[in-house]
Amino acid sequence: MLIRRLTIIGVGLIGGSLARALLQSGAVGEIVGCGRSRENLQRAVELGVIHRYHYDPAEAVAGADLVFLAIPLGAMATTLRQIRPHLASEAILTDGGSVKGSVIADAIAAFGQLPPRLVPGHPIAGTENSGVEASFAELYRNRRVILTPTAATDPAAVATVEQMWRLCGAEVNRMSAEHHDTILAATSHLPHLLAYGLVDTLVGMQQRDEIFRYAAGGFRDFSRIASSNPEMWRDICLANSEALSAVLHRFSANLAQLASAIEQRDGAQLTEVFARAKQARDRYVDGVLRSPE
Amino acid sequence: MLIRRLTIIGVGLIGGSLARALLQSGAVGEIVGCGRSRENLQRAVELGVIHRYHYDPAEAVAGADLVFLAIPLGAMATTLRQIRPHLASEAILTDGGSVKGSVIADAIAAFGQLPPRLVPGHPIAGTENSGVEASFAELYRNRRVILTPTAATDPAAVATVEQMWRLCGAEVNRMSAEHHDTILAATSHLPHLLAYGLVDTLVGMQQRDEIFRYAAGGFRDFSRIASSNPEMWRDICLANSEALSAVLHRFSANLAQLASAIEQRDGAQLTEVFARAKQARDRYVDGVLRSPE
Repeated sequence: MLIRRLTIIGVGLIGGSLARALLQSGAVGEIVGCGRSRENLQRAVELGVIHRYHYDPAEAVAGADLVFLAIPLGAMATTLRQIRPHLASEAILTDGGSVKGSVIADAIAAFGQLPPRLVPGHPIAGTENSGVEASFAELYRNRRVILTPTAATDPAAVATVEQMWRLCGAEVNRMSAEHHDTILAATSHLPHLLAYGLVDTLVGMQQRDEIFRYAAGGFRDFSRIASSNPEMWRDICLANSEALSAVLHRFSANLAQLASAIEQRDGAQLTEVFARAKQARDRYVDGVLRSPE
Repeated sequence: MLIRRLTIIGVGLIGGSLARALLQSGAVGEIVGCGRSRENLQRAVELGVIHRYHYDPAEAVAGADLVFLAIPLGAMATTLRQIRPHLASEAILTDGGSVKGSVIADAIAAFGQLPPRLVPGHPIAGTENSGVEASFAELYRNRRVILTPTAATDPAAVATVEQMWRLCGAEVNRMSAEHHDTILAATSHLPHLLAYGLVDTLVGMQQRDEIFRYAAGGFRDFSRIASSNPEMWRDICLANSEALSAVLHRFSANLAQLASAIEQRDGAQLTEVFARAKQARDRYVDGVLRSPE
């Protein structure tokens, strides 16, 4: 058995799906849940996703072999401080946060140094739903999980967390936290910011009722991510502000050039940019279709 | 029979689907195609989408009761000049262009005044495919078609075009060309520009291979429209430059505020914008689900 006792702090879509997948694979003995909503935790027990629960993270982590933090980035610092004195010295700590540099900084602040058995992680998976009711064992199947251990991280802890995610059907990759945060700023955080910004721009327009009435399929797809949880995305933007600001700056400069090309009626410049983007996206989609996913 | 002889200039997805829907409804006697690709026109005849074809728009429109222009916006001015001397005085002229002000301006330039039987139109429908092979009779079913007649437009011509689209299963709305162009700049043209701009920004980054490798579902949806035809979108951006520049300017100002909120770590401002956008999009999606679509 890979994990005798697993504590999951935050038993929602991400934490609940990990629990379900590990229970199915027989890799875990007992799962202890922790969270703030009594209703959600009770439901998690009823659904067989966790065996029991605590409201207090300190109590929840006592005796755990592995602790998974599936909580908002804005709650990481406080929760790490709460659990630190109660975590067994051999316990492995990992998380599912969308930004890795901030989790590492929060851990250093809480522990006084980077805990050698902290394995920062990010499963790139999710749906538009939340809460334990939305969780399912297949969420991580054929999805990628990025782990960002440092040179000081215990290799055995990394191997255990990697094995845990493989048992969920995920493909596990390792890279530096800085690299992860740069890549995710570009592919996930900036697109969310643009989708929120676009919808909010349209909301501010005089013709907004008609604008939304005539929006077609392209707009629906493009703006889907603007239906994401606002507090979660505020946390992500703040936690990854440096990398996000950098790619946002590049994008804004690119957009200003497109605006200038439109004003100057420079069709050749527009075609060049559009064609380069189309070629990259078509190649990228082809790449996805060729992948084992 | 609504239309004795229909000429379709540009027998691709848009023109071919109109032909198929009207043939199915029995509303049209003969359909004459026109285009530059012999292969596509031959295929259109084989598929039974058109009865015969010409390469020369002037020959194609002779004797037509109704002419539908399903050509790129950049080709409108030339085509209108070519057909003007050969169009029967009672013939109705309509189009499927994504920008209406530019079509009206091109028509005034070609005809010396706005032709009273020109009914500018825009079916808000499409797929990622093109050519007559991609056309199908159901493309316009439950989709919106916007007509932008002026006070000088012959009401009988508007009624015929409206009836034509209704026979294809579309819901027809009327508004001014200016209004149409403002709304479409916001819901369609700006999103395309942002998607192209984002993908092109990522292409320019050092980490681009990994960026595309780790892009997940949200990015795929968000960037789908960056796979659209570059020349078609160059034409649209140039044809609707005024309205597009205006909404792009609003968006850029909004994005600059978000960038500043991130740099100043103003979480309250981020939450406010994100929540307002989410609320609008959720309400809009609900609205779509409640609609007869």
